[in-house]
Amino acid sequence: MHHARFRDPAGSIREGTYDPQTDTVAFAGAEYALDDTAIDVLPPAEPTKIVCIGRNYADHAAERDSEVPDRPLLFLKPPNAVAGHGDEVTVPAGKDQIDWEAEIAVVVGEQCKDVSAADAMDVVAGFTCMNDVSNRDDQDREQNWVRGKAFDGAAPLGPVLATPDEVPTDASVELRVNGETKQSSDRSFLMFDVPTLIEEITAYLTLEPGDVISTGTPEGVGALSDGDTVEVTVEGVGTLEHDVRVP
Amino acid sequence: MHHARFRDPAGSIREGTYDPQTDTVAFAGAEYALDDTAIDVLPPAEPTKIVCIGRNYADHAAERDSEVPDRPLLFLKPPNAVAGHGDEVTVPAGKDQIDWEAEIAVVVGEQCKDVSAADAMDVVAGFTCMNDVSNRDDQDREQNWVRGKAFDGAAPLGPVLATPDEVPTDASVELRVNGETKQSSDRSFLMFDVPTLIEEITAYLTLEPGDVISTGTPEGVGALSDGDTVEVTVEGVGTLEHDVRVP
Repeated sequence: MHHARFRDPAGSIREGTYDPQTDTVAFAGAEYALDDTAIDVLPPAEPTKIVCIGRNYADHAAERDSEVPDRPLLFLKPPNAVAGHGDEVTVPAGKDQIDWEAEIAVVVGEQCKDVSAADAMDVVAGFTCMNDVSNRDDQDREQNWVRGKAFDGAAPLGPVLATPDEVPTDASVELRVNGETKQSSDRSFLMFDVPTLIEEITAYLTLEPGDVISTGTPEGVGALSDGDTVEVTVEGVGTLEHDVRVP
Repeated sequence: MHHARFRDPAGSIREGTYDPQTDTVAFAGAEYALDDTAIDVLPPAEPTKIVCIGRNYADHAAERDSEVPDRPLLFLKPPNAVAGHGDEVTVPAGKDQIDWEAEIAVVVGEQCKDVSAADAMDVVAGFTCMNDVSNRDDQDREQNWVRGKAFDGAAPLGPVLATPDEVPTDASVELRVNGETKQSSDRSFLMFDVPTLIEEITAYLTLEPGDVISTGTPEGVGALSDGDTVEVTVEGVGTLEHDVRVP
């Protein structure tokens, strides 16, 4: 099952279904192509916070000359970072290197705290795609990655929410820039898997329905340019697409 | 003018006024003592994020053996961190050192981005008190201070919101634990002042109404113990009080 949030032609926000076979979203009998300009696809969740994981694929830690952490490296993106499928993300001005990072994102289904790994999949509503847009100019010189990772538009999310049964444990994650493949890996290479992440995070923070855990990026990151079109595909979810504006 | 949010005896959430002379909150003719057990004082804002500033008083940077940063050190607390006046904050279990940090907190009044320091006070709704509760065990060994600073209850806020005219530019900030003064400084010692902080943050992040900027703590931090009562007083605002439970 795939859930889609969209603004319909009358301006109403709808939580409908998505059919990957026909690439259409539907609510109460009305059906639209996902990329129909008469509708606005909205992020499939409205997180109060996005808890992100750094260096969760060994190959990416190596390309950033970073060590693999001994426990999940956590950082936060606040709601102002959220963007959606089909949006144009304007990145901070005057920076030399703002990178893409394709990620498999988990959407939380219920308020929860102190969840064991064994029970963790019970609190997962599903999965979506995320681009963890990263401003290296600032990230590399600040303690907490706020300018680096929490700026407006730093978290394009979507296009839809796929329930866990749709997304295999070795689901592929791929990123293309202007049609060219830049990242390609799969969920089985996560060093800390989804249940482990949920146990670790909820030992400290209550998660709310709609909160997102973004599981980290594999190797192949690189710098965005003005006018780029980015696509993030997670197997079983679909393809998040957004444009980039470098002012 | 002082604004107070509280749940009245009927369970309705009220945005009333606070009279510092009588220490009472009022809405539509009904008046209660701030610490009347028939009402619940709520945090004076509902932030989508709290943007915190580290090492913004030179004396505190020195006591933590840290350098004074050349630009504001930013970090984030998400909504799950918020607690209120009169609440009992349960800190993470099994830690050796969880510290208090008294801070003057700014509450944002309108959605804003790219605000110059010259215009910054126009977007400020007012000030309140915050305790930036800090789990040093984890803060000192993680890149981003998530386990260290973003856990549930890590941001007691309150008791009320004072409009900017109530809070002098050299407003004192003081913290007492079980009645004993531990921190005492004033706003004039901030290395980066409120307008500078707003300009820097909004160069990257949109602020929303109710969002909080917590301006950093002066020297005198120390470890909380089970059963402690903490009071944070900001001149012109009032006194935030909360209890501590160490499980």
